[in-house]
Amino acid sequence: MTHGPDLAQIASDLESLEETIIARLIDRAQFRRNRAAYLPGESGFTGEGELSLFALRLRYQEEMDACFGRFCVPEERPFNHDLPEPKRRVTLLESCLNIADYDRVNVSGPIRASYLELVPAICREGDDAQYGSSVEHDVYAIQAISRRIHYGAMYVAESKYVGDPAGFQAAVDAGDTDRLLALLTRPEVERRILRRVVEKTDALQAPAKTNTRHIIDPAVIRRYYEGHVIPLTKTGEVRYLMNRGM
Amino acid sequence: MTHGPDLAQIASDLESLEETIIARLIDRAQFRRNRAAYLPGESGFTGEGELSLFALRLRYQEEMDACFGRFCVPEERPFNHDLPEPKRRVTLLESCLNIADYDRVNVSGPIRASYLELVPAICREGDDAQYGSSVEHDVYAIQAISRRIHYGAMYVAESKYVGDPAGFQAAVDAGDTDRLLALLTRPEVERRILRRVVEKTDALQAPAKTNTRHIIDPAVIRRYYEGHVIPLTKTGEVRYLMNRGM
Repeated sequence: MTHGPDLAQIASDLESLEETIIARLIDRAQFRRNRAAYLPGESGFTGEGELSLFALRLRYQEEMDACFGRFCVPEERPFNHDLPEPKRRVTLLESCLNIADYDRVNVSGPIRASYLELVPAICREGDDAQYGSSVEHDVYAIQAISRRIHYGAMYVAESKYVGDPAGFQAAVDAGDTDRLLALLTRPEVERRILRRVVEKTDALQAPAKTNTRHIIDPAVIRRYYEGHVIPLTKTGEVRYLMNRGM
Repeated sequence: MTHGPDLAQIASDLESLEETIIARLIDRAQFRRNRAAYLPGESGFTGEGELSLFALRLRYQEEMDACFGRFCVPEERPFNHDLPEPKRRVTLLESCLNIADYDRVNVSGPIRASYLELVPAICREGDDAQYGSSVEHDVYAIQAISRRIHYGAMYVAESKYVGDPAGFQAAVDAGDTDRLLALLTRPEVERRILRRVVEKTDALQAPAKTNTRHIIDPAVIRRYYEGHVIPLTKTGEVRYLMNRGM
């Protein structure tokens, strides 16, 4: 991905992440809802107390990712706290961002909550005992969603700010987050995104035979984008702008 | 997945894994070849000596997966040795397999070698410094490929054996692996698989804009299936049959 403040390039990068998110959700939907995998204290792990299998998988994954330096990247914001330091030298791409602490933009709490509501909407009800595979795919999906939201929150906000610094700075200085939201909102862009995720969900499932693969209703993905991905991106954009400046 | 010896269901499960493999390879191909990520001793990790970043990521991933019980599943054969014991109780689906040690079928060595040859064929040449993301996607892709090959090796072999126990057992007793290969080979099924992976590679890339996403040549996926996935599945089938019986 390019990290310049070029809005067209950023929009194009965000668009590219849509395929990844939808593909991950389709993978998860091949397993049943598997409610037990989300119940606290039901992980089956010895000595892990109140965490669900989902929560444990997300924690183990992020501990590994932290060793590899994932969270040095601005748009990779973790769901967990107290992760290990990177064990390797990480070469970062040059970034146009102007924020000292990326975690000021972190909206992973609401992302996690919204994802857990999405699972029953994309999966068939019931239990197929494949808890390990289910939470593995959950983690890949939720990481892709989080990357998209935080990438948009930071890079879109920066590029819009650069396009109208006086207007944005006035709203920031006044602490007027409603005004910031209004400045950030582009209804025609949002409508285009919603149309596109429906088309992509259909297209990515076109090769699937329904007797083999469980098919996700594209309207569910549309609602998830409309109700969560787009609003949380804007929440992150506002946070970015309110904390902008090194 | 159903684990009964029903060849139609097994073929359908294998077909479903094709989308996952192709989607993973498309994800990897969004990054450059990034040769440095595969060089021994160049991982940038402190204290990990001669391992490449790719080898390290695969090791860390499998250590995590082992804790979650992944390798209790027959078709999930690891690439690494000396992995930790599962930390959770794993509920396994009933299996129709007749083999005491699943690792007798393990062909992960040649899978790994073939995958490392595939990377330069699907990625653009060059270096984008995104080594962490590259090896992350490598590991997801190679795990999906391995699952497909080992699933086919065990379940297809068992179902074919059950369809002609006398014929297969005679070849096993004679140690005649050429005869086993001949009994296992279905040229028309192989041709259908190769046609299908080309169609799916096209279909899964249809929603992508070429200025955003790097497009994989479907012929590369076809060649990989023809040269590696199908032959390694048959190698695994022969190993399964030669080691069949509890």
